[in-house]
This record gives sequence, structure tokens and C-alpha cells, in this order.
Amino acid sequence: MAGSVNRRWVVKQRPQGLLRPGDLALVEGAVPEPADGEFVVRVTHLAFDPAQLYGISFDSYRPAIPIGDVVDSFAAGEVVQSRNARFPVGMKVQGSFGWQDYCLVADSSEVTALRSESPVKALNVLGLTGLTAYFGMTEIARPGKGDIVVVSGAAGATGSIAGQIAKIAGARVIGIAGGPEKCRWVTEVAGFDACIDYKAQDIGERLAALAPDGVNIVFENVGGAVLDASLAHLAIGARIALCGGISSYVPSEGAPPAGIQNYMQLGLRRASMTGFLVFDYADRFEDAFATLGRWLDDGTIVSVEDVQQGLEQAPETLNRIYRGQNFGKQLLAL
Amino acid sequence: MAGSVNRRWVVKQRPQGLLRPGDLALVEGAVPEPADGEFVVRVTHLAFDPAQLYGISFDSYRPAIPIGDVVDSFAAGEVVQSRNARFPVGMKVQGSFGWQDYCLVADSSEVTALRSESPVKALNVLGLTGLTAYFGMTEIARPGKGDIVVVSGAAGATGSIAGQIAKIAGARVIGIAGGPEKCRWVTEVAGFDACIDYKAQDIGERLAALAPDGVNIVFENVGGAVLDASLAHLAIGARIALCGGISSYVPSEGAPPAGIQNYMQLGLRRASMTGFLVFDYADRFEDAFATLGRWLDDGTIVSVEDVQQGLEQAPETLNRIYRGQNFGKQLLAL
Repeated sequence: MAGSVNRRWVVKQRPQGLLRPGDLALVEGAVPEPADGEFVVRVTHLAFDPAQLYGISFDSYRPAIPIGDVVDSFAAGEVVQSRNARFPVGMKVQGSFGWQDYCLVADSSEVTALRSESPVKALNVLGLTGLTAYFGMTEIARPGKGDIVVVSGAAGATGSIAGQIAKIAGARVIGIAGGPEKCRWVTEVAGFDACIDYKAQDIGERLAALAPDGVNIVFENVGGAVLDASLAHLAIGARIALCGGISSYVPSEGAPPAGIQNYMQLGLRRASMTGFLVFDYADRFEDAFATLGRWLDDGTIVSVEDVQQGLEQAPETLNRIYRGQNFGKQLLAL
Repeated sequence: MAGSVNRRWVVKQRPQGLLRPGDLALVEGAVPEPADGEFVVRVTHLAFDPAQLYGISFDSYRPAIPIGDVVDSFAAGEVVQSRNARFPVGMKVQGSFGWQDYCLVADSSEVTALRSESPVKALNVLGLTGLTAYFGMTEIARPGKGDIVVVSGAAGATGSIAGQIAKIAGARVIGIAGGPEKCRWVTEVAGFDACIDYKAQDIGERLAALAPDGVNIVFENVGGAVLDASLAHLAIGARIALCGGISSYVPSEGAPPAGIQNYMQLGLRRASMTGFLVFDYADRFEDAFATLGRWLDDGTIVSVEDVQQGLEQAPETLNRIYRGQNFGKQLLAL
């Protein structure tokens, strides 16, 4: 793309908490030219997920993004220049293209054709989010008919899909979300049996009323006080699938991350809390996509996306997740 | 036992934290006379365990001991009066006789002949403590050859036995205990490979040095900051058997119980934390006792008991556990 400018968000310093001016820089450069076997994608949509701030801030299950490198991100786009016959110009694709206008793809092994005509569905249900909900619920949480399942972050991307998968399995599903608008969507659109508004209601009191014999399954996306409330209402033999802990991803100013006090309930209730990484199921991703795609097409599951606008808004768009501002999958259209 | 006095510790009010004067009362009464099928045991040794304060203080996995009732406790003793042919006078027995000089046994279903000639071994390795270590390690923690196992409370009753069972399974075992005397016993007598003195050393630094590739198994008896340190050093796929959390059993004055911050490491490490109750394995207790008895007889496992003196010391003897004053199984000789 001779003459075009490529804007890229690169890491300048390790953030302390949420992203602030100075942590990243938006730099401009030429759009790279593809060598033989390579192609260039114009990025149209970025996908945001809670683990992203880890990658910018410190080493975790993967090394932190090196200082000076572009911020890593799943994205959708279109091939605009190509020296790779499998990825011709005009093809709609999804892959890890990063926070930039154009991505030069040298290694195409993890780039695929867009899995839906809708890029926002492709990056949500038919992306890492759908896979996380699918494998977390079917492999770790494993609800059965009649089980009472609590899903925190129920109006979030993963939680909303996870709860619907539990419904498919025949469970009774209680969501936890923040605010009446989200709670209404969770019950009326996503079809959960109930939703607790953690901003207006006491989670423990509501769980005691909704599940007087205790909760069999917890699909946890929030952690901290929200997880503590569920821990206090476990049934014997309960399973907690620890999918995320958004409340502890960002330490507040000087304070330690929100912890949990009620973990000894695992002992009293012979319960378990188990973490997972979706990448461990990579050999089954295509089967999962096929199932998720069918559910999405026939309306068995619904999804919601929160689409912000403009590459320059990428850092603030990521911050929205940790502030609970997103409603559904957080995306950014370029 | 006409003419004898039976002293009994009964619950007067629910303790707030450790036992204090006024929570219990030592009351005197006549030794009860056995009816047909009943017998009377003179209690010689009481066994103390961390969950006991739960039973005095509040409902947990079992209802709290009713106000006015004698404090529940495993114990050893001798039949001194009997109208039950299976439990003749002079027979040495163990069972749940409570904090009292004499126990009238109406339901003998959980009373057995003393499982060792030594009442202190019978109440430790051949009692609930041995069973807890045995089933927690073999059913939940399940170490294999070459696994690195961390055992907290390593000089405590359950931890010291659990670590030795992990050694039998071929694991490399790191204990955590308080003070040089306990640590020396853990390595030199109980045969652990290493022991971290949490009072003098930084647990995290020592774990990083002793297990640079992470810990595969944690057998947790302490909780709070000790568990948090292990959570920060898990290997991929690690298992935590949550046996106890002595640090969180007794809330300190006004402060919430010690929590854990690093639980999201379960997600990053695809690890699990699982609670258990030994009573769930009741149908296999006799097999476990046979195995434990063989190990004890042939010297494969060693045990240590901390024997205080006098029924009037029972409340302070229970408090010793939560202060970390006991060295091995806490017992009281009457």
C-alpha cells in the first residue's frame, strides 16, 4: 500500500493498573510490503479481552509484549495486498493482527477466513470468547439437567455465552451482572432464569433466596467479592470453573488485588475450583466452532457486542472492560 | 461408678475467636449408670483437631454443639462399667467420648477397640488424623513419582503424616513449619526433603529456590498467606488438596479472616483446588487403618504427639492449635 500510513499502538512502558497516557504510543509508519508468501491485512475490527492487560503489563502464561512492539490483539480484516495464493486480495480474515491499521502476515498458520459474514459475531461467539465459554462450561463446569449454575459477568462476552450453554445442558442458570439494563438483557434476551444486580442487591441474600439448597456450579468471571458470595452458597460437591477474575486484574491505587476469604468453604462443601486455558483444547477448536456456529445460526444462542469507534480509542476501549462499562463483547471498529 | 464425680466441659456461649473463660463451663455431676446395652468409659486421652472450634462456635458441615451440651471430641478410654457384652469392663476403646471424665455410651456403633497399644498413636495415626492425611493425599492430591509436593503445617498432626505418605508415593516433599525445632524434626525424623521455616524465611523465595519449575501438588493445612505463597509457585496442572486452613479458623479481633489473593494463578496454571471431608470415605476406613497400622509398625512412618495434662486444661489445649504451639498431634491426658 505505497503511500498509505500505518498507525500502530506500541508498548512504551509497563502500565501500573489501567492504561494511562504514556504507557502506549500511537506511532505512524509505512505500510509494509509483503515478501513472497506474505500478505497484508487491513484491520477492520479489534477484539478486546480481560487477559490483554496482562500481556501489556507483565509475564504471565505467556511473556509480556516486548517494549516497542505493537499491542497484540485478535482482529478481523481484509487482505489488501498478497503474495500468498491461499489469502487473495479481498478475502475477509480473522487472526491476531494487533492494534494497527495494517498487519503484515508472514506466518499464516493462525489466520483463517472470517467465520461469519458478521465480523462482530466472528470475533465474539466464533472467536476466543465463544471457545472459552464452550470449553470452560463443557469441560470444567460440566452442568447437568437440574443443576443450579451461577455465572458472574453474565452480561459480559464470555459469561453471556457460557450461561446459554448451561441452559442448553438443562441447568437452571442465575446470572450476576451490574445494573438493571444488563440484568434485563440477561433474563429477557439471553434467557437466564434469573439475574442478580450486584450494584443494587446483596448477592448472598439473593443466592440464598434463589438457591436455598446451594449452588452446584459456578462459572466465575469476576472474582473477589463476587466469587466470595458464591463460595458462601455452594452445595455439596460443587464445582467452580475459574474462567476469569476481572476484579483482580487491575490493582487499585496501592491496594492489593481483591482477594477471597471464603475459600475454606471448598473444604466444608467438598467442592473444587479449577482454572483452565482455552488453548489447551486447540485440537478441538474446529469442532467447537462448528457447534457454536450452528447454535448462533439457529438462534439457540444470542450474543451482544459493544462496538467503539476509531483506532485512537484502543487504550480507552480496553480500560472499559475493567470498569465494567462494556455490555457484551468489547470491540472496536477501525 | 457410684460415688465418683464426672466433670464435663459444656458449652455456655458461642466463642468469638479463641476460647475464653465464660465460653465453656466445667460442671460436676454423678457418673451415669448404664442401662441394658450401655456401658461407661473412663476417658484417659482427648484428641484435639482444628475443626473442633467450628463445632463449638457455629453450624458448619455439622450443626454446632447445642448450648449446655458437653464438648464433642474423639478420645481414648477404658470401659469401667458395662451392660454390653461386646464392651466388657477393662476393654480399651476409642470413640467420640467428649471432654469429660466419664462417658455413658448408649450407641456403640462408632466405638472400637483401641487400634494400638499406645493410646496416643491410636488417636493420631490410627484415628481421624491419619485417615485425613491418608485420603487427602491418596484421593485428592495423588502425588506420583517425581512430583514436587508442598505440605504446610508440616510439623502438625495431619501434615506430618501426609508428607510421609507422599514420600512413600515417590514424591519430593517440601514442608512448611514454624521454627527451627519443628523444621529439624520434619526433615531429620519425618524424612521430608526440605522444610521452610515460615517464621524466619520468605516462603516464596524458598519455593522459587527449591522448586524452580513450580510445585505439582500442595497439601494445604494453613491457608491465608502460606497458601498464597504456594499459589504463586504452581506448575502447570498443579493440584491443591485443601485439607485445612488453620490461619482462617479464628478471626482475629474484628479483622476478617485471612484471605488469599493469588487464586487467579489457578487459571494461569490450569490448576485446581479441591476440598474434601474424610467422612466421605467411611466405607474404606478399615482398609486405611490396616495400611496405616502396617506403616506405623514397620517404621515407614513416624508420628509425634504433644500431650498436655488434666481435663481442666482442655480449653487452653484446644487454643494451642490455633496459636501454632502444638508440635505434632495435640492430645490431653486425663
